[in-house]
Amino acid sequence: MNYLIAIEFLAVIVSAIYGVLLAARKGMDVMGVFAVSFAVAFGGGTLRDLFLDRTPLFWVGNPHYPVIVLGIAVFSGFLVRYIGRIRPLLVFPDALGMALFTLTGTAYAMDAGTGVFVAALLGVITGTFGGVLGDMICNEVPSLFTPSPLNATCSFAGAWVYLGMTHRDFLQPFALVSGIVVIVLFRLAAVRWNWCFPAVREPNPPPSP
Amino acid sequence: MNYLIAIEFLAVIVSAIYGVLLAARKGMDVMGVFAVSFAVAFGGGTLRDLFLDRTPLFWVGNPHYPVIVLGIAVFSGFLVRYIGRIRPLLVFPDALGMALFTLTGTAYAMDAGTGVFVAALLGVITGTFGGVLGDMICNEVPSLFTPSPLNATCSFAGAWVYLGMTHRDFLQPFALVSGIVVIVLFRLAAVRWNWCFPAVREPNPPPSP
Amino acid sequence: MNYLIAIEFLAVIVSAIYGVLLAARKGMDVMGVFAVSFAVAFGGGTLRDLFLDRTPLFWVGNPHYPVIVLGIAVFSGFLVRYIGRIRPLLVFPDALGMALFTLTGTAYAMDAGTGVFVAALLGVITGTFGGVLGDMICNEVPSLFTPSPLNATCSFAGAWVYLGMTHRDFLQPFALVSGIVVIVLFRLAAVRWNWCFPAVREPNPPPSP
Repeated sequence: MNYLIAIEFLAVIVSAIYGVLLAARKGMDVMGVFAVSFAVAFGGGTLRDLFLDRTPLFWVGNPHYPVIVLGIAVFSGFLVRYIGRIRPLLVFPDALGMALFTLTGTAYAMDAGTGVFVAALLGVITGTFGGVLGDMICNEVPSLFTPSPLNATCSFAGAWVYLGMTHRDFLQPFALVSGIVVIVLFRLAAVRWNWCFPAVREPNPPPSP
Repeated sequence: MNYLIAIEFLAVIVSAIYGVLLAARKGMDVMGVFAVSFAVAFGGGTLRDLFLDRTPLFWVGNPHYPVIVLGIAVFSGFLVRYIGRIRPLLVFPDALGMALFTLTGTAYAMDAGTGVFVAALLGVITGTFGGVLGDMICNEVPSLFTPSPLNATCSFAGAWVYLGMTHRDFLQPFALVSGIVVIVLFRLAAVRWNWCFPAVREPNPPPSP
Repeated sequence: MNYLIAIEFLAVIVSAIYGVLLAARKGMDVMGVFAVSFAVAFGGGTLRDLFLDRTPLFWVGNPHYPVIVLGIAVFSGFLVRYIGRIRPLLVFPDALGMALFTLTGTAYAMDAGTGVFVAALLGVITGTFGGVLGDMICNEVPSLFTPSPLNATCSFAGAWVYLGMTHRDFLQPFALVSGIVVIVLFRLAAVRWNWCFPAVREPNPPPSP
């Protein structure tokens, strides 16, 4: 259980930083930056806790989490100045945040007694919903829903790795790390070589109304 | 109670198919199609379960539901090819999905002991929220909120038919079927003859900022 | 506790009127107006109740609330005709609705035993989420997230005034009124003199993809 708390803590920090960069690209003010960071860092886990009826919510029960996210937003001016130069590396925190949150979602769902398929799904929802919410606040079509490098698929694969390894009685920390590594590597490879699924289209779509 | 489970099961399938067609029109990939189908099929019922504090969520407690929706999304390429030709008939599954979900929302709300007006509202929310979410993911203004053929109104009317009939001690299955038939016929008529409410406008709106 | 119920009741009415004016500007029909009023009046409080696991939701437990909002939406034609002329005064109900909901969020969170920072945050979420939802339904970039006169900041300041005063053993009604007055005056001043935070920007953002 302690492993999950450490993973969640890291996921919050990585996601908040990703949120700052998302917001800075839109020229938001510091409150807007905080709102986006907050949504990216807590969106997925909040949905997970609501869906599994876990109380209190993880950021209500760990009140230092939102304080940390506020701190990151307040110093975002410095952060943006520094990180802007290393943007090409940014795909890494994005992938890592998704991986960490996916594993917490899957593991908490299994603890709550759901079926394995639902646990994998809750992992994907926890891992990706923060990013979707951040994109929505920034008024962009969430990249999750457009043909773009595999995203939810990587998250789904890592959730199954974890589920398979715990089913085979591997130790939990080993299964957690394996799931995270699979998601991060799979996602980095998908971005690097632009792996996409083909689009599903109607043969002769009607003209748009 | 068993009637409601059967109705909910049918509602999930009909809504997932509607979601596939919504996503295919946007040329999404198979994961995007799954996300839209999932949102349309489970969005309304999830909100209903959260608002009524029913646990576990209906798709967590019935883990075969998301498996079926995944199956529909995986085979959506075939589905789209086949259903594209019968698009003019599509208004029917749309109306049926809304009708079925509306009745589950109203009936579960009454079971939870809400007032009748709140029960009718929860029916409308359950019946329409999936479609709103699907439209939002596809980045369209939800048709629920634009002047278009009556939609929530049909759902509202059917909820009251059910509430009136159960109040008068009709058998539940009879009241359920009556509510569904009213919603479907009302909605089909509204689309056919383009029944709309007039728009509410300010006499002299200020220029947009 | 009774003070909070009175404040919440007033907040619902003020917010529903604000929602009507938001919807009327977009030329929605009466059902769309109801949906927007409903979202503005109940969005923030619903999120508060879900996050704090309070059951039943405040508009489920007070079934006359949605009836009143429906009444306001039905008579919105008259309302819009009358209020259109006093639009310059409209910033006041907007600020008042935010203030009232902020205080209910903060007070209920403290009752539920959260930390003070989380209580202030829940106040801000309760106070601002209804407006964000209304903007989203109307397909606008929520003004909360764009550089515009201070908004969430006013709400945050008022929440801290309440928390500080109750910590110092002031009577609750006095602390509530002080928080509300601070938010309303702060917000009115921010709009009047156009107080904004500076935008956080990258020095050299990459070209948009």
